[in-house]
Amino acid sequence: MTNNGPTPEHRPRVIIIGGGFGGLQAARSLARAPVDVLLIDRNNYHGFWPLLYQVATAGIEPEQIAAPIRAIIRRMPNIKFMMAVVESVDRQRREVHTDRGVFPYDQLIVAPGSATNFFGLHNVQEQSIELKDLPDALALRNHIIAKFEQAVSEPDPDRRQQLLTFVVVGGGPTGVELSGAIAELIGYVLRKDYPTLDPRAMRIVLVEAADRILLAFPPTLSRRAQRKLEKFGVDVRLNTSVVDYVDEALLLKDGTSLATQTLIWAAGIQGAPLGATLTPSLQRGGRVAVTPELHLPDDPQVWVIGDLAYLTGADGKPYPQLATVAMQQGRLVAKNVLRQLQNLPLQRFRYIDKGSMATVGRRSAVARIWGLNWSGPIAWFLWLAVHLFYVIGFRNRVLVLINWAYNYFTYDRGSRALIGGAPLPAVNKPSITGAAEPASLTERDWGA
Amino acid sequence: MTNNGPTPEHRPRVIIIGGGFGGLQAARSLARAPVDVLLIDRNNYHGFWPLLYQVATAGIEPEQIAAPIRAIIRRMPNIKFMMAVVESVDRQRREVHTDRGVFPYDQLIVAPGSATNFFGLHNVQEQSIELKDLPDALALRNHIIAKFEQAVSEPDPDRRQQLLTFVVVGGGPTGVELSGAIAELIGYVLRKDYPTLDPRAMRIVLVEAADRILLAFPPTLSRRAQRKLEKFGVDVRLNTSVVDYVDEALLLKDGTSLATQTLIWAAGIQGAPLGATLTPSLQRGGRVAVTPELHLPDDPQVWVIGDLAYLTGADGKPYPQLATVAMQQGRLVAKNVLRQLQNLPLQRFRYIDKGSMATVGRRSAVARIWGLNWSGPIAWFLWLAVHLFYVIGFRNRVLVLINWAYNYFTYDRGSRALIGGAPLPAVNKPSITGAAEPASLTERDWGA
Repeated sequence: MTNNGPTPEHRPRVIIIGGGFGGLQAARSLARAPVDVLLIDRNNYHGFWPLLYQVATAGIEPEQIAAPIRAIIRRMPNIKFMMAVVESVDRQRREVHTDRGVFPYDQLIVAPGSATNFFGLHNVQEQSIELKDLPDALALRNHIIAKFEQAVSEPDPDRRQQLLTFVVVGGGPTGVELSGAIAELIGYVLRKDYPTLDPRAMRIVLVEAADRILLAFPPTLSRRAQRKLEKFGVDVRLNTSVVDYVDEALLLKDGTSLATQTLIWAAGIQGAPLGATLTPSLQRGGRVAVTPELHLPDDPQVWVIGDLAYLTGADGKPYPQLATVAMQQGRLVAKNVLRQLQNLPLQRFRYIDKGSMATVGRRSAVARIWGLNWSGPIAWFLWLAVHLFYVIGFRNRVLVLINWAYNYFTYDRGSRALIGGAPLPAVNKPSITGAAEPASLTERDWGA
Repeated sequence: MTNNGPTPEHRPRVIIIGGGFGGLQAARSLARAPVDVLLIDRNNYHGFWPLLYQVATAGIEPEQIAAPIRAIIRRMPNIKFMMAVVESVDRQRREVHTDRGVFPYDQLIVAPGSATNFFGLHNVQEQSIELKDLPDALALRNHIIAKFEQAVSEPDPDRRQQLLTFVVVGGGPTGVELSGAIAELIGYVLRKDYPTLDPRAMRIVLVEAADRILLAFPPTLSRRAQRKLEKFGVDVRLNTSVVDYVDEALLLKDGTSLATQTLIWAAGIQGAPLGATLTPSLQRGGRVAVTPELHLPDDPQVWVIGDLAYLTGADGKPYPQLATVAMQQGRLVAKNVLRQLQNLPLQRFRYIDKGSMATVGRRSAVARIWGLNWSGPIAWFLWLAVHLFYVIGFRNRVLVLINWAYNYFTYDRGSRALIGGAPLPAVNKPSITGAAEPASLTERDWGA
């Protein structure tokens, strides 16, 4: 303990690492409790990630799923916020080390979430697009539109086909929702924006290693979701593993390959790298084992919740890395921190599964709620209602609803401006004829 | 003329460089005329720049002032669009050279707009923030919020004061509207978001070289606008010229300096650099002289409109570089192109001045309309109505209106998430005590 560390005059200090679903819920549950809370996040906002794929496909605007954390905690006087990147946790000295200073704690709640798992595929990691944060979503949105702009002036049909092939790897909810939304964006909007491009050259491929998509759902719902995706124009490839990504071609285990400049990786997540500074023995997927009360087995003042926490339920399987698990853990961890400070017995985590759902596209979703399977327009409407309810802030709810209504009724997307992307790569001008002579692309798109 | 150039089978080809107010208006006016039009812009959207300062101050969202050009021209079959950066115009060969190929024209409308004029101040150009495009506005928004986040963990009061000093140079409409909006953002929102910071350390300074702000307005309106800005907390410095910007200090002609990390340059514009490839003899401010019919004196097939065009009105003064001038020129140039193709006599440009207006802040604006001076809530309401009318698209109009209503009634700003900015610079940790010891900043903000 340092000379500046906690002294008797201080109220107990709780540091929460991460302002995601788990961390923010823990902070809210500690509001007005007799503790001082410091919430640390690398961003100054709480991201509502279930709608991130809609930002990436120009359905809604990034600010609408980014709730400024300082606004959320404004009326919680015992909660402070610091925008900082946590570098490590020193459990011996009870300190959190960040790029903005060192902060001592009495109780530490670790909720940093997850990172993308590339399963050791180095080239994929270097060149694919992931969807974990708002800059990722904006980069993907810009990337898709830039590929269409490039295709307009690409004279070679093979290159054009490659530019217009969009591959999503991973048939979980993220991959399914994203490929469905890309299919809608292309089918309803971009086809009309680019009348000179042949729609048959536009391809969306969803690659899944297992024998069905949406493995966490019952097989009937997997089949229905797949049928819907295929109806929207998505080429769903089951039992297909990725081997490598070389020279703008995705190499598959069956020996075939897909020529694409757009590889979106949604095949898996792993615990955030911060876990390794907490304990040397990580569980599968880089997760940190916790007791049923949610603290480290050898350190009852350090709690881990959300995607990073590894805890098995009554069925012997680890709890899934879902927002609902993180939020329920956030509530319990706040309660247990206060109980420990009062020397009361701790409570054990019990997950109440309220169901799960995934949209496939327009008027189409699958859901498992109260043990029942739902699909089609009813599931889609439920999905909209639940997600609108959880978006933070009245203003954002109104804006998201207006965007959804606009998209639904006009078959349009408002936000397809390419803002702040890299410039398009220059066209390969024919080297023999020289720059002064108009290339063939000039004639193709221009008054022909 | 090249071998691929216009042949009798072709309809006349009109290239428009620039999708701003002038270029877009020209394209719209040529819709369904017996010509083929190619509109070229470096962005894929038309930006409604009069509201750009509101994006920079988190009042509205960037997509709401970015109308995708392909959506606008969707129902105009004779108009094509190409997202490209124009490198030069070859008037001998009648070709436009871009990073995406070479395009031949029969008629060329040049409307590339303007660039910031730094008046040869090299350090200012390198280190200041300008406000010309959406990435600039987002960068400024992120910059302001990042300075507040940095100030939270800055133990040195002088450095904190420097972090919280925001200097706008240029008392024209852009500088006035921007400094007023920054004052609102800080006064209503950021003061509450950062309760540990002393509001007296937050400063907004507006620097103007002339003896009054808003030189294009009558002196009474200049005085009223200045009084309002000062009421909102802006430190207005008249008769103050900038000499240099060195070591995060703005050096002024009177020998004093302002320590700031935020220098926003709104002191002047000049014609876009493309002008130099059209003619070797540019007018003052890098503008290209045109005939009253809006074409080059020595080339009646090349037309220049908007901020780049230099043409004097009946009063002997050049027309101002305003959106309304550009739009009226866009309409006339389309008409004159068609008249020339039909061998009809060309019409001369006559500017109909509908007035000008600038907001100062909440319920406050100045306007000169029909020769009358307006200020206060009425001018403010007129400003809102006019700008809302000109925002492109029903959806954007609704979203902007909702944002304005939200901002007005809640005194809040919705969009203050720091998305995709550079990470905050690391705090200077005390080097003697070592990293393991908490710095004083830790104690200051943390449960003290």
